[in-house]
Amino acid sequence: MENKEEHTLVPGEEVADDEGSEVDPLSDPEERRVLFAALDSFRQYRQAAHYNITHLRRQSFYSLPSAHMELLASESFNLPKTLDAVDAAIDANADIADTVLALGLDMYGLDPESTEWRGAATSQDMDKVRSTIRQLYRDWSAEGAREREACYRPILAGLNRAFEHVSPSKRSNVSVLVPGAGLGRLAFEICNAGYAMEGNEISYHQLLVSNWILNYTSGPKSRSIFPWALGFSNHTHRSHQLQEIQIPDVWPAEELDKSCKTLSSELHAYQRMSMSSGDFCVLYKEERYRAAFDAVTTCFFVDTAPNLIAYIETVKHCLKPGGVWINLGPLLWHFEGGSPEKQKISSSSETGRENQDRNQGIGESGSFELADEEVVKLVEYFGFEVIEHNPVHGEAGYIQDPRSMLQNTYKPSFWMARKM
Amino acid sequence: MENKEEHTLVPGEEVADDEGSEVDPLSDPEERRVLFAALDSFRQYRQAAHYNITHLRRQSFYSLPSAHMELLASESFNLPKTLDAVDAAIDANADIADTVLALGLDMYGLDPESTEWRGAATSQDMDKVRSTIRQLYRDWSAEGAREREACYRPILAGLNRAFEHVSPSKRSNVSVLVPGAGLGRLAFEICNAGYAMEGNEISYHQLLVSNWILNYTSGPKSRSIFPWALGFSNHTHRSHQLQEIQIPDVWPAEELDKSCKTLSSELHAYQRMSMSSGDFCVLYKEERYRAAFDAVTTCFFVDTAPNLIAYIETVKHCLKPGGVWINLGPLLWHFEGGSPEKQKISSSSETGRENQDRNQGIGESGSFELADEEVVKLVEYFGFEVIEHNPVHGEAGYIQDPRSMLQNTYKPSFWMARKM
Repeated sequence: MENKEEHTLVPGEEVADDEGSEVDPLSDPEERRVLFAALDSFRQYRQAAHYNITHLRRQSFYSLPSAHMELLASESFNLPKTLDAVDAAIDANADIADTVLALGLDMYGLDPESTEWRGAATSQDMDKVRSTIRQLYRDWSAEGAREREACYRPILAGLNRAFEHVSPSKRSNVSVLVPGAGLGRLAFEICNAGYAMEGNEISYHQLLVSNWILNYTSGPKSRSIFPWALGFSNHTHRSHQLQEIQIPDVWPAEELDKSCKTLSSELHAYQRMSMSSGDFCVLYKEERYRAAFDAVTTCFFVDTAPNLIAYIETVKHCLKPGGVWINLGPLLWHFEGGSPEKQKISSSSETGRENQDRNQGIGESGSFELADEEVVKLVEYFGFEVIEHNPVHGEAGYIQDPRSMLQNTYKPSFWMARKM
Repeated sequence: MENKEEHTLVPGEEVADDEGSEVDPLSDPEERRVLFAALDSFRQYRQAAHYNITHLRRQSFYSLPSAHMELLASESFNLPKTLDAVDAAIDANADIADTVLALGLDMYGLDPESTEWRGAATSQDMDKVRSTIRQLYRDWSAEGAREREACYRPILAGLNRAFEHVSPSKRSNVSVLVPGAGLGRLAFEICNAGYAMEGNEISYHQLLVSNWILNYTSGPKSRSIFPWALGFSNHTHRSHQLQEIQIPDVWPAEELDKSCKTLSSELHAYQRMSMSSGDFCVLYKEERYRAAFDAVTTCFFVDTAPNLIAYIETVKHCLKPGGVWINLGPLLWHFEGGSPEKQKISSSSETGRENQDRNQGIGESGSFELADEEVVKLVEYFGFEVIEHNPVHGEAGYIQDPRSMLQNTYKPSFWMARKM
């Protein structure tokens, strides 16, 4: 990670269009639109949050009967001071949004003042930038360890079980694909354990932030975020809303250096870690990916499929015979019902998970939702042997303040299947 | 409950307008609009559910590639059969909606064919009718007992502690107000324990269903509902989606007869149970309610306040000196941020609780959201002594399938305060 050209995990390195060939996102009108909207949402984060979160609340506060206002402004309650503290928290979060934006503009060679991308964000993009910044809690803070333990650890343990015959120093010979790589933590952990890892992600929001956190942070706990500051409900204590956390909990570059030595890895981590951007079902159905991987790991991913069969066929295509598919996640079907309205409900901020997909092309050619027992049966039908299945594997929140009076807790299903 | 005129808990018996006088809902244009919209949503439940839930899914299913469709229609998966079963479940739920509608039209003397109310429902009304029917799981099924144990039992136990000097047979001398009475289960339990109970509810959706369940069911477990049939996400087994439950778990009329004998109650339950409809802060600030009650119980209610001070002042007004306020609930502020968009997010179906309020008049004069520690401090400021406070009192879902892969769990705060 010292040399940007060689070692960074550059998002956008591979973008597949519908025909499967690689494209520069700036040369494809639809990709440009999506990228520009994502970039602009990072630019607008600060102003939108100040407006929606504190400005409107101050208006509501100053509309109160004056006796009520005076009481709530007194030392005992001091709501104006709370709003000032939330403003400061928004600014800390927005500083990260600005850092990510500057990096993205630089990477794509865009003019910071150009109107070609400024103003492109939709309200969905604004939802995504908020949830992506909060997601740093889950993926890259010490406080988020419990959520990661419940989700990433079983996958990593499954991978180690499946390849227990491979000594840690030779795990670079085991290639692992991580679709839906998100902010890159599971991908990083797999690489850190010695495997050759390729991540894939479709969302530019996620790609922009993962690029920053993996390649451009200046050290462990070098930045602050306030993951709960924008929400005013279900706090037992006001201090919980204003909790400040340090990110990243570990410094990726340093950790990978250390693990290479500990594992006596035959290949340095920089040479066995890459990230692709684009639609999983388009890119990894290409001929060059036939039987390319020893393992595919999917975490909170299969329920993003409008048509799960397309996902299964893609995993099957890119896995070697005898390769394993390790899955963990709930079944919050992101396209539930197929209608945009339904998507909105199922991807609301209450469940923590935003719909990060834009594969509408696939959505248009039909969709369906299965129960866990049916998912496993379908995987078997397509030529996999399900070698482990635990329908309720522990439980964990998804970007969830553990002190909140409302806990959204997932009870994910875990299974491992071998391609026959 | 044998004689409708004397014994039923008729919603709409008292409706307060902004000046506080009682009005017939049909004579007030705004009340008419709200009532008609609620009634119409019960009429539309069946058709809307068939359209949104199964018709659109069949369209998505038949848009799949034909090989996929054939596989999913085969005996192993049989998705068309699932959709047929969901249609049957929708019909069972809709039969209840129809029963409630017929009762409501009869009660208000409305013509079933009249266009004055047909077509009045908004999409918010449709959300409310769906959540109100699902709420029968929470309030009136054996399966919902766990949710009730976590919420109603601590309140009832608190009431019994506060009035332990009153023998059960004389509890009819203790008057208890239950704002936000909803489907009437807590109200019923308080009456069933011997107290004189007055419920208050603003939502016609809730009032119409509680009137039916309290007064017009033909016996215990006399009707079926399918509370989870309309949701296709997070099922480990398809059979869980199609769970059928019987309501009511107990027959209110029979239970009240029994408890009167067991308690040797001085007054029959029918003479110490009533229900008012209207805005709590308008109705119970009236002079006739000054120091009218020995206790007020609020369950999942205080967070419906745009201005909590108005709620506190109303409770204080209608409580006798020395009377107790018993509260249990989270702080999912229904008016969070004050904007309609924010309300929509915080009241989404993901959290189980719909915003049942229409007190926009109060909403317009300011709003604020407090943490639990601040709520208690504010209650103390207004002349209450907080005699018990447990910020995390157990936990429970709110209309939550306990077998779902996504659990929305509340950790409510419990407190009891005495008016000094």
